[in-house]
Amino acid sequence: MSRVFDINGVKIGGGNFVLIAGPCTVESEAQIREIAERVKESGAGILRGGAYKGRTSPHDYQGMGEEGIRLLLQARKTVGMPVVTEIVSADHLPQFDDVDIIQVGARNMQNFELLKALGRTDKFILLKRGMSNTLRELLLSAEYITGEGNDKVILCERGIRTFETSTRFTLDLSSAAALREMTDLPVVVDPSHAAGRASLVEPMALAAAATGVDGIMIEVHNDPANALCDSAQALTPDQFDSVARKIRKIREVVIG
Amino acid sequence: MSRVFDINGVKIGGGNFVLIAGPCTVESEAQIREIAERVKESGAGILRGGAYKGRTSPHDYQGMGEEGIRLLLQARKTVGMPVVTEIVSADHLPQFDDVDIIQVGARNMQNFELLKALGRTDKFILLKRGMSNTLRELLLSAEYITGEGNDKVILCERGIRTFETSTRFTLDLSSAAALREMTDLPVVVDPSHAAGRASLVEPMALAAAATGVDGIMIEVHNDPANALCDSAQALTPDQFDSVARKIRKIREVVIG
Amino acid sequence: MSRVFDINGVKIGGGNFVLIAGPCTVESEAQIREIAERVKESGAGILRGGAYKGRTSPHDYQGMGEEGIRLLLQARKTVGMPVVTEIVSADHLPQFDDVDIIQVGARNMQNFELLKALGRTDKFILLKRGMSNTLRELLLSAEYITGEGNDKVILCERGIRTFETSTRFTLDLSSAAALREMTDLPVVVDPSHAAGRASLVEPMALAAAATGVDGIMIEVHNDPANALCDSAQALTPDQFDSVARKIRKIREVVIG
Amino acid sequence: MSRVFDINGVKIGGGNFVLIAGPCTVESEAQIREIAERVKESGAGILRGGAYKGRTSPHDYQGMGEEGIRLLLQARKTVGMPVVTEIVSADHLPQFDDVDIIQVGARNMQNFELLKALGRTDKFILLKRGMSNTLRELLLSAEYITGEGNDKVILCERGIRTFETSTRFTLDLSSAAALREMTDLPVVVDPSHAAGRASLVEPMALAAAATGVDGIMIEVHNDPANALCDSAQALTPDQFDSVARKIRKIREVVIG
Repeated sequence: MSRVFDINGVKIGGGNFVLIAGPCTVESEAQIREIAERVKESGAGILRGGAYKGRTSPHDYQGMGEEGIRLLLQARKTVGMPVVTEIVSADHLPQFDDVDIIQVGARNMQNFELLKALGRTDKFILLKRGMSNTLRELLLSAEYITGEGNDKVILCERGIRTFETSTRFTLDLSSAAALREMTDLPVVVDPSHAAGRASLVEPMALAAAATGVDGIMIEVHNDPANALCDSAQALTPDQFDSVARKIRKIREVVIG
Repeated sequence: MSRVFDINGVKIGGGNFVLIAGPCTVESEAQIREIAERVKESGAGILRGGAYKGRTSPHDYQGMGEEGIRLLLQARKTVGMPVVTEIVSADHLPQFDDVDIIQVGARNMQNFELLKALGRTDKFILLKRGMSNTLRELLLSAEYITGEGNDKVILCERGIRTFETSTRFTLDLSSAAALREMTDLPVVVDPSHAAGRASLVEPMALAAAATGVDGIMIEVHNDPANALCDSAQALTPDQFDSVARKIRKIREVVIG
Repeated sequence: MSRVFDINGVKIGGGNFVLIAGPCTVESEAQIREIAERVKESGAGILRGGAYKGRTSPHDYQGMGEEGIRLLLQARKTVGMPVVTEIVSADHLPQFDDVDIIQVGARNMQNFELLKALGRTDKFILLKRGMSNTLRELLLSAEYITGEGNDKVILCERGIRTFETSTRFTLDLSSAAALREMTDLPVVVDPSHAAGRASLVEPMALAAAATGVDGIMIEVHNDPANALCDSAQALTPDQFDSVARKIRKIREVVIG
Repeated sequence: MSRVFDINGVKIGGGNFVLIAGPCTVESEAQIREIAERVKESGAGILRGGAYKGRTSPHDYQGMGEEGIRLLLQARKTVGMPVVTEIVSADHLPQFDDVDIIQVGARNMQNFELLKALGRTDKFILLKRGMSNTLRELLLSAEYITGEGNDKVILCERGIRTFETSTRFTLDLSSAAALREMTDLPVVVDPSHAAGRASLVEPMALAAAATGVDGIMIEVHNDPANALCDSAQALTPDQFDSVARKIRKIREVVIG
């Protein structure tokens, strides 16, 4: 069983399960607040929202940056739930002072200088597995953080790169079960990015819950068709509510 | 929703879910009968048992062959449940006259001459996805069978080959959901081969159930430590019973 | 250094290098004879030509079958060079009585019953590596043949499946060098299938020669634009002549 | 044909071929000077030497850091050849003022903030392909640099991650040929890291030369057995001299 982390009142690990939900990116004050309220009503414990985005193409939308963090923190205060958002450069660390969990994206999993800088903070770190990194490499990257003195690392499976092209990435759910035998750090699954389309998010989220993982992170948008980022894979608040109910029931089956 | 097949009284597809269970290989009359009785009690609808094995190494155990099929059919009669067993050569087809479902292994998914020969029978065919074949290629292989006039094909995800080495194969559960959007053939998942060790079979079997798949095939042995084949991944009948109960509860959640 | 095989007068292995050339499939008497004459003039030692094709889709061209073998053997006699052609079912073996080298395609590398049947012949066998098979698995498949008494096996690298999509397959040239440390069977490289387009065939054929491989197999067609199979990757006889010259010069550099 | 870059007197691209050679890491003043002298005598045009190393494990040797750069620059002055060394954090940029080419390692290929910072310098950038990145993604990462105003980018293939385990990575030589059809940036191949052992470096270096690439980067150490990093794959100066001679001859064949 994994260890327990208390993230400003929300427990994860050691039998405590958490739903993390929110938009791919923060787009406006109204957008993030409305989504935050809706996902909280549906049982989400932590709010996600991107401000700095690491995009494969320099021509893609790169996020609101510092202003996005400000709006996310405002929603955090209004709605009352811890937040997670991604960092792309250690130089931005001062902007993350009030953020509860700092996310390291898949493409930065082996940006060792960033990991070491995060290891010198006292923040919770959500470390995403690189798209082609083994579990052993993921754990070694976690050691770059813990080795500097910060052991508050949460691991996240978000899909690996394979030959298959009918899904965006291949969600490697057995990694969740295999990691449980290799580490006591909490493990979270992000089914949204791997699926790449909303119709696959529910089945993969339920499957993740069935593996006994410590948390699931789902992209939710109040207006998916007009989302500025990854619109194809976002669930509506109503869809999220339905998935969240099923996840809770599956959790009951799994923990017996 | 997938179409329904009636396999000598056992329905699969179209909302009908089936557990397939049994040993990797038939080893003796007592072994297969005892396992058959136990898995039937636990709710399995179809009995599996290998007679001809396609093994990567010629030095590995190759199965009992025709005698294995005879023992499997005897257990079928005694216990009263349809059986599935693998074929490795069209020349062996006469031996499969009383077999309910003929399995094509992953390594023969693109043995097109075998597929065509099976297309000229009236047997149910369990077609396993090759370890590095796309879903599109799996469906094209199914067409080699259906094109000859036999449309009774059941597809089976059994794990794909990736860079990750901490599990034997990477069980690609999103394929189950993605296939549902591409075909109306029933889809089954085999978590045992991908996991490669018993501790991962339960979480992956539950995860497969959560995706809404039409069936799950699990290796069960009455004495795993002494199994002649793939002993590390076989569940005991008691373990299978526990997994089967949880799978049924997860099914209830999924179909709402 | 690999062992030497004498294929009806053409030596391969042990320092003897052979070019294998010809069309993807035999299409007519005139086509195969013309191509045979041209590639022989350019220094090819063995003529290739498909009669039975293992195609991913049942809707793709499947080859001329027995008639294709007849035409290939006729060209063999007229032009005077050994031939290699693919087998897809052990039932067809009688048709291969006068064929010098029987090819096992990548998709049949683990069709163990076919391998065993070929092990009971006295033919040379060109065993292609499966698109996702390790070198160790390739050697175990070779043992299915040699274990039955036929040690005349030539191994062939033809490209592996990876995440990269800008080439059809990823030609794994380091396998040629790595195999040399693992076996004394001759090793041949087929750059045409991996490249998937003619512009990449020359650089990859030269690269294969530079690794010190025992042979290279190249698709050549007298009218690529109208080839019935894999037209995009076929070289013209003139292009092949140019590549063959360069390959010979690179061989001189490599063997010093 | 690729464009020409003049790197402080050494031309690469547009028909100009360059050998880059040197140790995995700078270890001492004597070590880097001796290696520099030897590889220059053998025809290398650019000296490589790591100071900051991005290592998968925090427990592995991480390099001499700033002192390593100082010793490399001293060797540069003594021997008279441009140098290339890796950067792992934009914060270190001031230390690279006199470095000719700044290398971005495979694990930082999608560290977009680092790429943008390098785009605001006037240095040559050697951008290594990530171990699981497509050619398209490599070119998009290059655009993160060129988009900031620095178009002096050299691309480097260093092996991709596949299922094969008998080599450390799979050197994807067809990428060199395919990139030539996609970009006019010079392309370099690093066969040492992919091979992972010295016996495979020569065949793969010759193969790279045969594809017509603009440069080849090879690890050379004066005492491989005692190298602090990647000792298994380093060539001795004598071995490098022999490979360099063969590469030049192959270049003559390729450019006709």
